[in-house]
Amino acid sequence: MKYFTAATRLLRHSSNRRSNLQLLSSIRPSSSGHSYTSLRSYEKFMQDDCFHRKIMVKNSLRGSGVGILNCLAKFGSDGIRTHRRNLASTTSIPERNKSFATINSDDISYFNKVLGGRGVVQDEEKLDDANTDWMRKYKGSSKLMLQPRTTQEVSQILDYCNSRCLAVVPQGGNTSLVGGSIPVYDEVIINIGSMNNILSFDKVSGILVCEAGCILENLMSFLDNEGYIMPLDLGAKGSCQIGGNISTNAGGLRLIRYGSLHGSVLGLEVVLANGTVLDMLGTLRKDNTGYDLKHLFIGSEGSLGIVTKVSILTPPKLPSVNLAFLACEDYLSCQKILVEAKTKLGEILSAFEFLDINAMDLVLTQLDGLRDPLPSSKHNFYVLIETTGSMESHDKEKLEAFLAQAIESGLLTDGVVAQDINQASSFWRIREGVPEALLKAGATYKYDLSLPPEKMYNLVEEMRQRLGTAANVVAYGHLGDGNLHLNISTKQYDDNILAKIEPFVYEWTSKQRGSISAEHGIGLMKANKLHYSNSAETVQVMAAIKKVLDPSGILNPYKVLPNSVLSQS
Amino acid sequence: MKYFTAATRLLRHSSNRRSNLQLLSSIRPSSSGHSYTSLRSYEKFMQDDCFHRKIMVKNSLRGSGVGILNCLAKFGSDGIRTHRRNLASTTSIPERNKSFATINSDDISYFNKVLGGRGVVQDEEKLDDANTDWMRKYKGSSKLMLQPRTTQEVSQILDYCNSRCLAVVPQGGNTSLVGGSIPVYDEVIINIGSMNNILSFDKVSGILVCEAGCILENLMSFLDNEGYIMPLDLGAKGSCQIGGNISTNAGGLRLIRYGSLHGSVLGLEVVLANGTVLDMLGTLRKDNTGYDLKHLFIGSEGSLGIVTKVSILTPPKLPSVNLAFLACEDYLSCQKILVEAKTKLGEILSAFEFLDINAMDLVLTQLDGLRDPLPSSKHNFYVLIETTGSMESHDKEKLEAFLAQAIESGLLTDGVVAQDINQASSFWRIREGVPEALLKAGATYKYDLSLPPEKMYNLVEEMRQRLGTAANVVAYGHLGDGNLHLNISTKQYDDNILAKIEPFVYEWTSKQRGSISAEHGIGLMKANKLHYSNSAETVQVMAAIKKVLDPSGILNPYKVLPNSVLSQS
Repeated sequence: MKYFTAATRLLRHSSNRRSNLQLLSSIRPSSSGHSYTSLRSYEKFMQDDCFHRKIMVKNSLRGSGVGILNCLAKFGSDGIRTHRRNLASTTSIPERNKSFATINSDDISYFNKVLGGRGVVQDEEKLDDANTDWMRKYKGSSKLMLQPRTTQEVSQILDYCNSRCLAVVPQGGNTSLVGGSIPVYDEVIINIGSMNNILSFDKVSGILVCEAGCILENLMSFLDNEGYIMPLDLGAKGSCQIGGNISTNAGGLRLIRYGSLHGSVLGLEVVLANGTVLDMLGTLRKDNTGYDLKHLFIGSEGSLGIVTKVSILTPPKLPSVNLAFLACEDYLSCQKILVEAKTKLGEILSAFEFLDINAMDLVLTQLDGLRDPLPSSKHNFYVLIETTGSMESHDKEKLEAFLAQAIESGLLTDGVVAQDINQASSFWRIREGVPEALLKAGATYKYDLSLPPEKMYNLVEEMRQRLGTAANVVAYGHLGDGNLHLNISTKQYDDNILAKIEPFVYEWTSKQRGSISAEHGIGLMKANKLHYSNSAETVQVMAAIKKVLDPSGILNPYKVLPNSVLSQS
Repeated sequence: MKYFTAATRLLRHSSNRRSNLQLLSSIRPSSSGHSYTSLRSYEKFMQDDCFHRKIMVKNSLRGSGVGILNCLAKFGSDGIRTHRRNLASTTSIPERNKSFATINSDDISYFNKVLGGRGVVQDEEKLDDANTDWMRKYKGSSKLMLQPRTTQEVSQILDYCNSRCLAVVPQGGNTSLVGGSIPVYDEVIINIGSMNNILSFDKVSGILVCEAGCILENLMSFLDNEGYIMPLDLGAKGSCQIGGNISTNAGGLRLIRYGSLHGSVLGLEVVLANGTVLDMLGTLRKDNTGYDLKHLFIGSEGSLGIVTKVSILTPPKLPSVNLAFLACEDYLSCQKILVEAKTKLGEILSAFEFLDINAMDLVLTQLDGLRDPLPSSKHNFYVLIETTGSMESHDKEKLEAFLAQAIESGLLTDGVVAQDINQASSFWRIREGVPEALLKAGATYKYDLSLPPEKMYNLVEEMRQRLGTAANVVAYGHLGDGNLHLNISTKQYDDNILAKIEPFVYEWTSKQRGSISAEHGIGLMKANKLHYSNSAETVQVMAAIKKVLDPSGILNPYKVLPNSVLSQS
């Protein structure tokens, strides 16, 4: 048998590799140069990449001119082609809400008083970063950023802004991919980053309480010393903050094992638009006393309140991590492998990712220093399976038995298990390198979709039929969670291609009851596309709740809900 | 060493017991005669038990007389003593809301038309059951129960009731322990039990979609054939319905492993008070498109809308189940064992329950046919640890290593591992027999509390100090979830004892930021105690949301929120 040469070697000679493998999950996201660990490194990558020096925004600029989505002058302005490489579709921006006031000197005096002269930022250079989104796609024109250090300060700021009808945008690490964390016009930026204290950790229950501005990676480091881990892990962990993670219901790599933040978050402290502090900061796994309001603030992108403190259940850190890179000939086999893995690897399965042959080819062609872990032949699909457990010998035995059976039954055609941390890192680099490879290949039309796993790949195939040779349709994602990252790669941006993709892709997704935003949220980019994944009645109720909690609409305006619905309600 | 005689035998001779053990979790709750599997068997138990033939309600009857909490005449009326054995405190019932209409013949005609002449119940005997709660503590006086079979029918009923201002009470299996599912006065009962179809099951993703009236045990049987399990398991599974489970955010035995319903429920269809159908019936693990409204309906006890369909993520069924019955000398050791179990048994830990010496003594004294699994000496604390995993040999090895280390370090003083399903069943019977033993011992003041695990037992000790020899303070519960069932047992009910317990127990819990209802909900019983676990601001927001979704307050009135707050808002 030709299969599993390296894997077999590893499994047959399972000497003590635990010391190498045990930190696999914690080092993964920052192990390579371009892994987007922080805005800083991302910017460096963007600036290093010649394709990204020229960026301009083509949007219908229907605003009042006070603040609009500007072109990013510092990257040049020579056309729409390069700008378009990361856009799914043109974002239609509502006009500035005329009921909002503009900042005056009295306001500045008041904020200086509240914040004791610190954390009132008017410096243009500093504001430039805060006005610009992570993808360098949007730019607002806020003239003021406030950096409160206490809940009381957030409350005073919001109370004041609400009474003055000054719009605000809450900001954490500003790593949104849908324009959720930048001002659209001249909103006051309330940056929570100075509220970054860990308040308590209970080693018996694993419950962490901290302020919302704690950076995810810092929380991970803290917990690592305590023998626990965060229940979520993201590429942006070096910049993103836990308050932002919660406000956007961040998904990431550990969702298949530890579930969504609706399950992990035990309590929140939230400041409402009028400055009211909602203390829901319980540290209990069970609490059935009235409506569980905290869930309204998980995933509402700061449009219902600003999260200031967080209580979260953290899982114990387990010492054994294994990673297998596998090949299947058809999509049905990938699905069957998933079912088998859920049963045979059951409690130790911690990631189940896939990429198709087009994604694999692109990564190997575009990125330097990567090699095919299964070079003997090409395969139509590749699957990464990670296990995490408490006893290495058991995990290896389970994985070996699982792989042997999968080979025997013909579900797998080839595969390899990482023998050390470097090999594991190179496997992850392939999966995580797809977005970077896409950037290098030309323009990309990007879609982050949730679909029933059995139907997921039908969309990819239909898209290939629609587009023919005009584009390279690339598919990868979190198959274990039903999350497809569908990317259509072309040499350069073309309106005709977009017309073939949209609204087809949204309509197809909607017809399958899929989600047009699996994990990135709605933000500014998709507010007008909310109806593809929500009924009109549901959106109406969302608007009614927004109206109750934020009657003047000052919190993160123009985001999440379509303007048309808000203006009706 | 004297420890682990039986355990060692089992572990050293781990022959193939899997066939016996594998169904352990599925048979557990119905394995004994008095395990409350259904209302039917519970009633039988109640009627068999001489202490429970005489029940009367002592409440301040301030109602209008149209419908009140009556004494349960069929059980007699010879005093408050027996009635009081299951009451924590007197429930203060608001007056009937005068804005509600009363049923007339036109209403009956309309409902007959909508339901096609079926499912319009006016028969007194049938209504008697639906008017009476599971604990035989409350009785309403509804004259009408409707049994819709489709969402459309629920919608038409609610639309009509809302326009007529007829109050309604949604009812599933009617197994509430806090008077959440019975009419208080003459509300129309909308029973969802006829909507009991399984709509789809995806074997790849494990996602089940069904109607809200499906009985939990039926769903379990269905999934068992598919190789999956429900993420929750309750004593009442033979009667309770999934819609009711979701509306009350039911906890139960699998929470430590699979988390709360906020994590497992993927989608809901809900009918609002005005008949609007909210279709949020997604089947996706990831969907970040707007506010996640379904969470408002999880745990709001039918007061915001009626759940009609459910989409839920089910975990794969794993073949290996083990159960250990262990002894610790002090509470600190129980906590340390919990931490160790979370790390060493990590991914296979599926239950962590405890009972103290008073609970153990009571069970052994009051219940027939039970024997102490660790008879060589008395111990202050007993812990049950269950593991569930995909490979029996691995699980046994992990458990053996864990127990050996716990013995060596002195955390455990004795213990035994179940050798077969009968032994496992008898261990569970001890833990699950405590409520029954309490009933037999006399009157009980019952409290279902969530507390930080490290402080949980302080309350028990303080309570013992307060009460001295006047009462037997008994503690048990889901230690792994921080859920304490605190029970104060006396020969007969005594107002003086109650005055020593309340409000002390609620104030103590509130001071520790605990929950006064960990898993049973608020219902009618605790609506006026909501403030012990929620800030005034939070309760105000709950009331505002109630007002938006149910402006006339027709849905499950007098429950969940204090009347005083609703009438203000």
